[in-house]
Amino acid sequence: MQQVVVTHAPDGVPAPEDFDVVEVPGAALAEGEVRVAVRTLSLDPHVRTALRLGAVPAGHAVAEVVESRCPEVEAGQHVLAETGWRSETVVPGAAVRPVTVPRGAPLSAALGVLGMPGLTAYAAHVRHLRPRSGATVVIGAATGGVGAVAGQLARVAGARVVGVVGSDEKARLATERLGYADVVRRGAGLGDALVAACPDGIDAYLHLGDQATLDAVMERLSVGARVSLCGLMDQANGSAPTRLRAGAVMRARAEVHGMVVHDHTDLAHEHAQRVGDLLAAGDLVALEDRYAGLDLAPTAFARLMSGRNTGKVLVDVS
Amino acid sequence: MQQVVVTHAPDGVPAPEDFDVVEVPGAALAEGEVRVAVRTLSLDPHVRTALRLGAVPAGHAVAEVVESRCPEVEAGQHVLAETGWRSETVVPGAAVRPVTVPRGAPLSAALGVLGMPGLTAYAAHVRHLRPRSGATVVIGAATGGVGAVAGQLARVAGARVVGVVGSDEKARLATERLGYADVVRRGAGLGDALVAACPDGIDAYLHLGDQATLDAVMERLSVGARVSLCGLMDQANGSAPTRLRAGAVMRARAEVHGMVVHDHTDLAHEHAQRVGDLLAAGDLVALEDRYAGLDLAPTAFARLMSGRNTGKVLVDVS
Repeated sequence: MQQVVVTHAPDGVPAPEDFDVVEVPGAALAEGEVRVAVRTLSLDPHVRTALRLGAVPAGHAVAEVVESRCPEVEAGQHVLAETGWRSETVVPGAAVRPVTVPRGAPLSAALGVLGMPGLTAYAAHVRHLRPRSGATVVIGAATGGVGAVAGQLARVAGARVVGVVGSDEKARLATERLGYADVVRRGAGLGDALVAACPDGIDAYLHLGDQATLDAVMERLSVGARVSLCGLMDQANGSAPTRLRAGAVMRARAEVHGMVVHDHTDLAHEHAQRVGDLLAAGDLVALEDRYAGLDLAPTAFARLMSGRNTGKVLVDVS
Repeated sequence: MQQVVVTHAPDGVPAPEDFDVVEVPGAALAEGEVRVAVRTLSLDPHVRTALRLGAVPAGHAVAEVVESRCPEVEAGQHVLAETGWRSETVVPGAAVRPVTVPRGAPLSAALGVLGMPGLTAYAAHVRHLRPRSGATVVIGAATGGVGAVAGQLARVAGARVVGVVGSDEKARLATERLGYADVVRRGAGLGDALVAACPDGIDAYLHLGDQATLDAVMERLSVGARVSLCGLMDQANGSAPTRLRAGAVMRARAEVHGMVVHDHTDLAHEHAQRVGDLLAAGDLVALEDRYAGLDLAPTAFARLMSGRNTGKVLVDVS
């Protein structure tokens, strides 16, 4: 079996060279355990802060059970498992759960729109952003794993949704595939672009980006605006801590929330139902950024952590 | 009549020398107007950002009507009026309203615990801080006009209330007169003092202070904590903008609100009723920092803006 190990503690944004793919023998199977072959591995930003020299990065995956010594789990079954960045591994049978997705959806949806990024977006949408019809919602990373779902949920709720993007390709994806009403480009000129795209101010903002984007949005909040702090990408990469201007919070009498998805697992069923229905009806698109082969996991992760991904980052392993 | 004028645009914290007291003739009274003699003038921090060279600072007051050409207002009546820092002035009769305070309370309570600072504290308490019995609440300026009321409301709600203070005198006032469970001193050592005073973390924080206090509190929030940004004193004095660490908001999954009292005037009746009852029952103290004579208004304001006041700052004018 193959696995990825950290060979250099990354400084700032991780580079593909910070990792190595190595061959290791498979472990023996103890009573109660199952051997799973990873089919699709999920790469997630929160892994960045937990990278340890010599260790295999954490990751969950859609995997196929290839051998089982657990009576509740059958070989051939597709499950969700915490496998790490491996092609195959041994886990307790009690730690895996069956994959369920709506008819017609790929199993990988369980890692994206129906998985943790989707639940993050759903919880931010219903608990923090709460957009009313006609409201202006800004999504900090329009085409990312979380942002793509949040933007579509806000659009379905009747909001005018403006996405922050970093490239022309993402701008096109955001408006053509995800239904954003408008997009603005990160970097110089963002402030003016936000004024043009949000003439009535910004009623809700999902922060998934950098300090400059946060500052630009905060200055243009409308009164009573809601802000959900979700991904602090610069902080994950070890740069200066993100800071919020308190004066902007006061001027807008804004409500600012910190979003950590583990607080919102009570919404998991509602999320699966609602997003599953939207997916089945074609009202919500699962935007995936897929890479073929475990050896591309370091490249895919480096792209994710520098914001160059388009949609949920997945690695097809076998 | 006397009035105070701004003679130097203050740089940073205002000094008494930035103002002058001058004698001016009284204005003639037009139809519909009333002449009021200021009895007690309220000094408020928000005036700081509106100081203009050569102008009379804004301020509201309990005043006595000494002459009336408005049928609805009688001479001899005590009213609330926007007088500015003056001993006497002419205002439209329609712009004054009668002072009402509970039996036994001084009229000046209408400027403090029953006035704007009291409403600010009440709104922050019921809408942002929402302390449950047993919760730990930190008040950023324990003995100030807003903080003193907010601290007492939290104590009445069953919270353990910890006040941030800047002097021994205030520490004594906070615990002995206002019923704070504990106090911590601003400055070096604040972080450790907060840990000692709040062993279970901080569930709610009313920010009325400086950047260092905000940072120290934010690092010690418990999960689900609520923060109300009320007074940004450093910003009012023109120093660097206050900033909130986004990582701390996320770690605590905190809910941060900007408090501007004008959004909460719908609570005015409820506030007057509730705080009036507590005042009448002796469960809430109106802490006042009084100065005798309009010529002391600049000194009183400088003390207020450097955080050296104890309670609501009032100037007895005649």
